[in-house]
Amino acid sequence: MKKLQQKIRQDGQVLSENVLKVDSFLNHQIDPALMQAIGEEFATRFQDACITKILTLESSGIAPSIMAAIQLDVPVIFGRKHQSLTLIDDLYTTTVYSYTKQTSNDIAISKDYITENDVVLIIDDFLANGQAALGLIDIVNQTGASLAGIGIVIEKGFQDGGKLLRERGYRLESLAIIESLVEGSITFRDEETN
Amino acid sequence: MKKLQQKIRQDGQVLSENVLKVDSFLNHQIDPALMQAIGEEFATRFQDACITKILTLESSGIAPSIMAAIQLDVPVIFGRKHQSLTLIDDLYTTTVYSYTKQTSNDIAISKDYITENDVVLIIDDFLANGQAALGLIDIVNQTGASLAGIGIVIEKGFQDGGKLLRERGYRLESLAIIESLVEGSITFRDEETN
Repeated sequence: MKKLQQKIRQDGQVLSENVLKVDSFLNHQIDPALMQAIGEEFATRFQDACITKILTLESSGIAPSIMAAIQLDVPVIFGRKHQSLTLIDDLYTTTVYSYTKQTSNDIAISKDYITENDVVLIIDDFLANGQAALGLIDIVNQTGASLAGIGIVIEKGFQDGGKLLRERGYRLESLAIIESLVEGSITFRDEETN
Repeated sequence: MKKLQQKIRQDGQVLSENVLKVDSFLNHQIDPALMQAIGEEFATRFQDACITKILTLESSGIAPSIMAAIQLDVPVIFGRKHQSLTLIDDLYTTTVYSYTKQTSNDIAISKDYITENDVVLIIDDFLANGQAALGLIDIVNQTGASLAGIGIVIEKGFQDGGKLLRERGYRLESLAIIESLVEGSITFRDEETN
């Protein structure tokens, strides 16, 4: 997605060979016109998938998800992060390890909002090691719903998550794939070879 | 806002005289068409206020804020909640006490995204005791920006937050004001007398 690549080049900050900061338009400040374009792109890519629900994770997944949801005319459910959960009777839960923060979080969604008849699109802001995506996939599997695929705003192509998800046969649509951040420079994977 | 009142009556769950659960369209599952209508309503009410930024709080404030932001063509900044903050050099921070959870959270925003030249609209999903709104106001005051007002999706009119903010002279626009939740029944404050 060219518009997103341009925005990343223009406003992304390369903090190290592994860390791209996009706080100015995605993770802290949010650019609504860009989110609208991102939502439209996800909707176009998954338009034939008969999506009935979008599942994401608080907080940065919410804006791109709600914009895709407008286009696809389906509800969004956002998973909540907890240090640890005790009351889990009415929740689907899974544990996600963050390599960045070196902590584990439980994520949870209510059993009320996704059923076995749903077709779910997972959307998240970043894909790195794939732990959050695998956690959301685990939750979809617990619900018995069908998983249509995973939509990612920015994939770090130099980390393992994308490879792992594609090898397992999931449909993965990443709107921008960062090939490398070496020497402060952002290189994208050619969109044609996604 | 009639459409919101109808949705609250239809899908809100009164859990006690103080607790209204709206997980099915606002706090966990999100209804995108309703959020779009809410965003348009905020934009209409504040259309003459020359807003340049919307400030909200993760996570449930994000969806209504991004929808208002589309209409007003301004960025959203969402404050992050932390148990406690240590590195605060580049952040504006404040502490918010939650009566519901009986815990304090620090909330923080980067100093990069709101400046003294901004005109800020605060948006949040709920107003009860007003602690979150006062925290966000404190942050706006730290930035030196002007505060145009506070937009709330659901105000619990039987708690003190709304009265407190109005008495202090802030412009408060609540799209639905719950007068009471007595005996499992939802009573709205007459919209005409807001």
